[in-house]
Amino acid sequence: PVVYAEQHESDEEKQFRRVFQQLAGEDMEVSPKELMDILNKIIAKRGDLQTDGFSIESCRSMVAVMDSDSTGRLGFHEFKQLWNNIKKWQGVYKCHDSDGSGLIGADELPNAFRAAGFPLNDQLFNMIIRRYSDDCGNMDFDNYIGCLVRLDAMCRSFKTLDKDNNGTIKVNVQEWLQLTMYS
Amino acid sequence: PVVYAEQHESDEEKQFRRVFQQLAGEDMEVSPKELMDILNKIIAKRGDLQTDGFSIESCRSMVAVMDSDSTGRLGFHEFKQLWNNIKKWQGVYKCHDSDGSGLIGADELPNAFRAAGFPLNDQLFNMIIRRYSDDCGNMDFDNYIGCLVRLDAMCRSFKTLDKDNNGTIKVNVQEWLQLTMYS
Repeated sequence: PVVYAEQHESDEEKQFRRVFQQLAGEDMEVSPKELMDILNKIIAKRGDLQTDGFSIESCRSMVAVMDSDSTGRLGFHEFKQLWNNIKKWQGVYKCHDSDGSGLIGADELPNAFRAAGFPLNDQLFNMIIRRYSDDCGNMDFDNYIGCLVRLDAMCRSFKTLDKDNNGTIKVNVQEWLQLTMYS
Repeated sequence: PVVYAEQHESDEEKQFRRVFQQLAGEDMEVSPKELMDILNKIIAKRGDLQTDGFSIESCRSMVAVMDSDSTGRLGFHEFKQLWNNIKKWQGVYKCHDSDGSGLIGADELPNAFRAAGFPLNDQLFNMIIRRYSDDCGNMDFDNYIGCLVRLDAMCRSFKTLDKDNNGTIKVNVQEWLQLTMYS
């Protein structure tokens, strides 16, 4: 079925697969270091996004939350999902940086996150600013992406665990540590 | 009561308070940047601990999980708890680096973590190695401390949430995001 799917890919998918093969190298998986190099190469060309670069720590965390099959690296589909999200959220970042500072200020953040798909309440927005923004309340591009990748993953894992869809989840200590330590 | 407690501190506590005042500066709270500078100053003097230094990302995460009163910085008692843990775990690291490499290898890790107070099962140890160790399975000092600070915090928050002590916790999406995003 994988071979069948590959034969029926659109041209865009085929092109993305070729790019992935170049990035991932022989093992066909993207490591945290490979992810960091790719992201930093791309943002180096973008003068309109303020960032001090993606750190290895932040890339390890992103790989962990996207690594559904627990290989420690991102396979084609895991990487594609991450890539499409980053592309989408980069557009949201640009749109909501209304003062053109290259940063998302505390006043711009709620609307940006809503547009990115996360209509949180004020308490959560304030917590996110405390954790990911600088002392002036500004969030740079690498923190913004790191934060959204984690937020998206945590919302997805909540939905998966909330099998009867009643708004609460029940976890034991093993599940709790698996979810919070591999992130 | 705070003043009373300060007057009845032991000499060791008084000395620690003086050191804290110097580190924390005028606001009497330790920021992620201040924590990073302190830790990197100390490890620079230690040739026996392999590390590429504490990153700001890792220090932000440590401050978040220790920040009980949600100020975004560590007050005296929060910092003291972190400091005592780091001191204790540094001793464990030294003891369990049996080949003197300055790193904790995958074979040394389970005993080191047991000695640090975390007798996990193999599945969790393997996950921790995947997230915090390098490609050869070696964990350096900054990853080791970052990992234990988070592990300790996650075990404590589980215990707090497990009010009836039955081994499972029930959380709603607001609690889930507060716990997993401020970390």
